Amino acid sequence: MSPTVEEVKALFRPKLKPLEWDSKNKVLILLDQSRLPFEKVFEPNRSPEEVAESIRLMKVRGAPAIGISAGYGMVLALTSSKPESLDSAIRTLSRAKEVLDKARPTAVNLSWATSRMLNRAKELVESGRVRKVGELMEELEAEANRIYDEELESEIRMGLYGLEKIESGDSVLTQCNAGGLATGTGLGTALAPVKLAKLLGYDVQVYAPETRPWLQGARLTVYELMEEGVPVTLITDTAVGLVMYQGRVDSVMVGADRILADGHVFNKIGTFKEAVIAKELRIPFYALAPSSTFDLRSRVEDIIIEERSPDEVRTVRGVPIVPQNVRVYNPVFDVTPPKYVTAIITEKGVIYPPYERNVRRVIAGER
Amino acid sequence: MSPTVEEVKALFRPKLKPLEWDSKNKVLILLDQSRLPFEKVFEPNRSPEEVAESIRLMKVRGAPAIGISAGYGMVLALTSSKPESLDSAIRTLSRAKEVLDKARPTAVNLSWATSRMLNRAKELVESGRVRKVGELMEELEAEANRIYDEELESEIRMGLYGLEKIESGDSVLTQCNAGGLATGTGLGTALAPVKLAKLLGYDVQVYAPETRPWLQGARLTVYELMEEGVPVTLITDTAVGLVMYQGRVDSVMVGADRILADGHVFNKIGTFKEAVIAKELRIPFYALAPSSTFDLRSRVEDIIIEERSPDEVRTVRGVPIVPQNVRVYNPVFDVTPPKYVTAIITEKGVIYPPYERNVRRVIAGER
Repeated sequence: MSPTVEEVKALFRPKLKPLEWDSKNKVLILLDQSRLPFEKVFEPNRSPEEVAESIRLMKVRGAPAIGISAGYGMVLALTSSKPESLDSAIRTLSRAKEVLDKARPTAVNLSWATSRMLNRAKELVESGRVRKVGELMEELEAEANRIYDEELESEIRMGLYGLEKIESGDSVLTQCNAGGLATGTGLGTALAPVKLAKLLGYDVQVYAPETRPWLQGARLTVYELMEEGVPVTLITDTAVGLVMYQGRVDSVMVGADRILADGHVFNKIGTFKEAVIAKELRIPFYALAPSSTFDLRSRVEDIIIEERSPDEVRTVRGVPIVPQNVRVYNPVFDVTPPKYVTAIITEKGVIYPPYERNVRRVIAGER
Repeated sequence: MSPTVEEVKALFRPKLKPLEWDSKNKVLILLDQSRLPFEKVFEPNRSPEEVAESIRLMKVRGAPAIGISAGYGMVLALTSSKPESLDSAIRTLSRAKEVLDKARPTAVNLSWATSRMLNRAKELVESGRVRKVGELMEELEAEANRIYDEELESEIRMGLYGLEKIESGDSVLTQCNAGGLATGTGLGTALAPVKLAKLLGYDVQVYAPETRPWLQGARLTVYELMEEGVPVTLITDTAVGLVMYQGRVDSVMVGADRILADGHVFNKIGTFKEAVIAKELRIPFYALAPSSTFDLRSRVEDIIIEERSPDEVRTVRGVPIVPQNVRVYNPVFDVTPPKYVTAIITEKGVIYPPYERNVRRVIAGER
């Protein structure tokens, strides 16, 4: 029998906390992810400016983690500058939102979180529900905690749905890092099921492809699973086919950056090949993502695959592997058509084909 | 109309010569491949000891290139030590064979070439066809040249068969380096068709995946194609699926390390995934290899996939990408079942399914 969300919440104590709010001292403690996996350095952030800098330098990364950090960054606006009136507090928060939003302009979660915090503050002040700056600060701290809690609960729900697809003894192949480092909670999306499996005493292990060019698999997924005690084996991206062919993989679980209404899954480059080989070898392939990842309006031909700098491929951790004049094609995402996707796992439930009908039913509540 | 082998031989003048026999000065000039792609250094080898050292340090690599070098190494045994009698020459050659064979004990082509040279010498002496050491040296030089010529002619034949599968305007996806650096001739096996296509004025281009962990695609394939003026684009191993999905690839051409009688192809890790995706997307997949690559006795379950040191994955060009204690699975080859192989291209002709019947017919001449 599966545990409840509350039971898991009580049980789940990640050894690696990528971010932590120190309520007593009003400090946001961020793990500097840019130094992983070689150095584990936690840095105190005491102002929105410091949080913005941490986001800008990619010390904190991943859409949900950035959103949560920005939420606490808004709290820090009040604790660091100590405005004397509620009016002044709202002005301080508006300025903090500007500073934070600029840190990574394309991160949707960032401005979503700062808007939510600012709107909450305005609502509290305008309705007269808070009368002192201290009260406003406490209410905003509670709101930032709610952003964190909602994220964690969403991941636990997703993890519990994913857990239904895992048996003790299973090996799971993933791709990139869709873990607790990216979400900030220490749990994650694609890695939530294996972490819950481990928590509940299953014998479970993970194969992590290194995921060139950024090596998120090697640097982050391997690191965070080792920290949590989940057995993990690093493989090259070239070995993905063989490990499945050799029967070493019971299921594939990956994250997603965008999922369309017809079930097309956009995710980190390399996902498509895992999906095709999994289908050919009859291994289930699951995409795990929160409902906020769904784009119910776009068609697959509307989405442009982002290309990044050739230098990311020409070098590894700054070391050149080819001459500078080598021509490179460096797409960052790929697209997996719905026929290769066994199911999409969200916090609202598991979505099976036909996706054309079931995505809208589960995500938008349509019948 | 396709040119003849002799016509191609007259036309083919590689800009990059990985090895060259200087007959006038009796020196074997070897390109130091361990320094590629950043330094292009040619080194003179004047004795079997020097050739053995070049093989041991992987300055020359690839089975055919090692065989050709060893053949010339046997000639250098006579030019460097100048034995005074035919008896003494045979003893010198026997010692040279020992020195060369030890350089890389698992390289079958190495001892094959030294045995061929030694046997040829014994036969010439015993039959009385040579009476002086100088005559023996000339005959052995001719024999070493024959090893080279036979290799080049075999590659040209393979290249011409492969050329039938290419149209002007095509893009070819490869894997690893099955090129002229590995064979010593500057032409290669899997890369022979695109090089001949270029030579004959086709508009042709290549996608080269970097091929972790050794990056032979990035370091060698890209380098040698750029030297020969064949347009080439480097991609990560993760991007292999997307480039095929986007319709950028007209055919896949890879080499092979071992091919079984039933058509199973063993080749560098990562080949299998290309084959599966190619079949799924109806892109032809060709394995190119000389008939010496066929193993008509073994069954697929007899072949052990070689695993190499985890440190090859934990580092890139000596730079660590993960901590030393990370668990790694590092298989070097994978196996592609015959159902994914459109055809196998050899110097004896193109082999189509059903392989069970056609491999033996083409390779062993059975009916």
